[in-house]
Amino acid sequence: MILVVCLNPALDVTHDVAAVDWAGVNRAHTVHTRPGGKGVNVARTLRAIGADALVLGLAGGLTGTAVEAALGRLGLPAELTRIEGETRRTFTVVDGQRGTSALFNEPGPDVGGGEFGAFRARYEAALPRAAAVVLSGSLPPGLPAGAYATLAGLATAAGVPVVLDTSGEPLRLGAAAGPAIVKPNLAELEALAGRPLCAARAGGLAEVAAADGPDPVTAAAGDLVAAGAEAVVVSLGPGGLRAVTAGGVWQAVPPAVVPGNPTGAGDAVVAALTFGLVSGQPWEERLRHAVALGAATAAAPVAGEFRQADYARVLTGVTVSRKEAA
Amino acid sequence: MILVVCLNPALDVTHDVAAVDWAGVNRAHTVHTRPGGKGVNVARTLRAIGADALVLGLAGGLTGTAVEAALGRLGLPAELTRIEGETRRTFTVVDGQRGTSALFNEPGPDVGGGEFGAFRARYEAALPRAAAVVLSGSLPPGLPAGAYATLAGLATAAGVPVVLDTSGEPLRLGAAAGPAIVKPNLAELEALAGRPLCAARAGGLAEVAAADGPDPVTAAAGDLVAAGAEAVVVSLGPGGLRAVTAGGVWQAVPPAVVPGNPTGAGDAVVAALTFGLVSGQPWEERLRHAVALGAATAAAPVAGEFRQADYARVLTGVTVSRKEAA
Repeated sequence: MILVVCLNPALDVTHDVAAVDWAGVNRAHTVHTRPGGKGVNVARTLRAIGADALVLGLAGGLTGTAVEAALGRLGLPAELTRIEGETRRTFTVVDGQRGTSALFNEPGPDVGGGEFGAFRARYEAALPRAAAVVLSGSLPPGLPAGAYATLAGLATAAGVPVVLDTSGEPLRLGAAAGPAIVKPNLAELEALAGRPLCAARAGGLAEVAAADGPDPVTAAAGDLVAAGAEAVVVSLGPGGLRAVTAGGVWQAVPPAVVPGNPTGAGDAVVAALTFGLVSGQPWEERLRHAVALGAATAAAPVAGEFRQADYARVLTGVTVSRKEAA
Repeated sequence: MILVVCLNPALDVTHDVAAVDWAGVNRAHTVHTRPGGKGVNVARTLRAIGADALVLGLAGGLTGTAVEAALGRLGLPAELTRIEGETRRTFTVVDGQRGTSALFNEPGPDVGGGEFGAFRARYEAALPRAAAVVLSGSLPPGLPAGAYATLAGLATAAGVPVVLDTSGEPLRLGAAAGPAIVKPNLAELEALAGRPLCAARAGGLAEVAAADGPDPVTAAAGDLVAAGAEAVVVSLGPGGLRAVTAGGVWQAVPPAVVPGNPTGAGDAVVAALTFGLVSGQPWEERLRHAVALGAATAAAPVAGEFRQADYARVLTGVTVSRKEAA
């Protein structure tokens, strides 16, 4: 079983509107409500590729109850620790005429130390059954920036490998706790490094090369390896994935720019990397599947979902090359 | 006690955003959640002006439970009949930079005949305690257009006067069931009449005059009186209120254009008219209070709320004139 931690889940509400009046009254032609948050997306993808996932998270108020009920309707096993505050909603408006989406995020509930303690007890109780732990998404207000580092430390001490996908201080602190994989995207890695790593991000990897030594992306990822992570996989959007490990550096590139919505693609990458980790795939295979699953998810309208045909089609076209030893 | 029927209540969620990116990700600086729907606004206003109101409505799913809990937090007495479908949400985005609001409405749950029957039983049980009944807002999907006519007929048969605020076929059918007051706005009256009644709506009442006979607004309101309503009060936005009854026609005009958000102003007018009805105020007084309460509510940021100082200030400046016998 793969334990997927989701400390800040959400009730995702999506309104599909034919042509939005941004200064007036709108009636959606379709309203969808789904359980959301990055961890939930990871768990949905894990289940879709045949892995056994358990969502461990926090839930509060009636919105928390709605998230729990929605997870149940999807058949996703979840253990949610009840908290005092109200679980957040996200609200997405899809403008059919303009082809744009506007996303409105609530910050999430203020989580108390006692509540995190209760969660931690259930997490420790579940660890012996876990083949891996995924720590994914932002931390809700009130939790210390080291919350993921604490959870990662408990897992590695129990011999359970950790995949960490977050940003900022929780990423910096978490990487030092010895996770098997951390997965920043380019913007998150740049924010951590405190410098731009790519001249023209949309142009892909050709822009990343540096004059001498490792290119800036590999160098910044290497800093996270030096800090304690066993491997760093940087998602580069259309440029694919860069894996930096003590054993080598790999680059995986999709066959062509796959159009679609990048929301949720990173979560699919995390799911594939975790599945590859627990099933002992070599890095080439992990990255091939991760790129294909990310691209197939980007092409699907809903985060956490993809079409098997897209996955299979992209998979055959992914190019993986070994760059160098790190 | 005034019985306020709210068959399609809502959970109103409002996001205040500094400057909205309509094609990107937004984080609200404030999120408000309130019970909504026109009937709820009417009940809140009634309570604020000292009347005893009971909300009678339908609620389903966790959103229905959230509405019920939110009514409880406001201290508004409510009896909500549980239904199978999920109560609707409304979502409002207030753009601080542009000063605009976008409203996203969900249609509401599909209400079955058996569910309306259960509601009707509780309505009939409450009628003997009621000094008046307010029927307000749209009907949820699944209910026949004559649902308000049925409820109005039961009330009038029990000697309880009815105030009806709805539109379209439910308004046409409801007016024939003998309500004491129906309150369309100009657009609703025009839709019912099937013709424009005002050349330049924003220009106010000067535009409404016709060559001979009653002006078009009075004539169209008179048709609803002929159909069965005892009185028709047409809300004309900045033009004030026109009351058309068998005993005469009155026009009430606010002292000046009061700036603000018209959402909820109509509900405040309904509350004032109902309070005036049960307390035996003459039409001049009812209209004076209704105009002032509507204007004070328009000036407040939240539907169902107003500042007493605004109410008192506008009240002294309202002009009421008797136009003619109908």
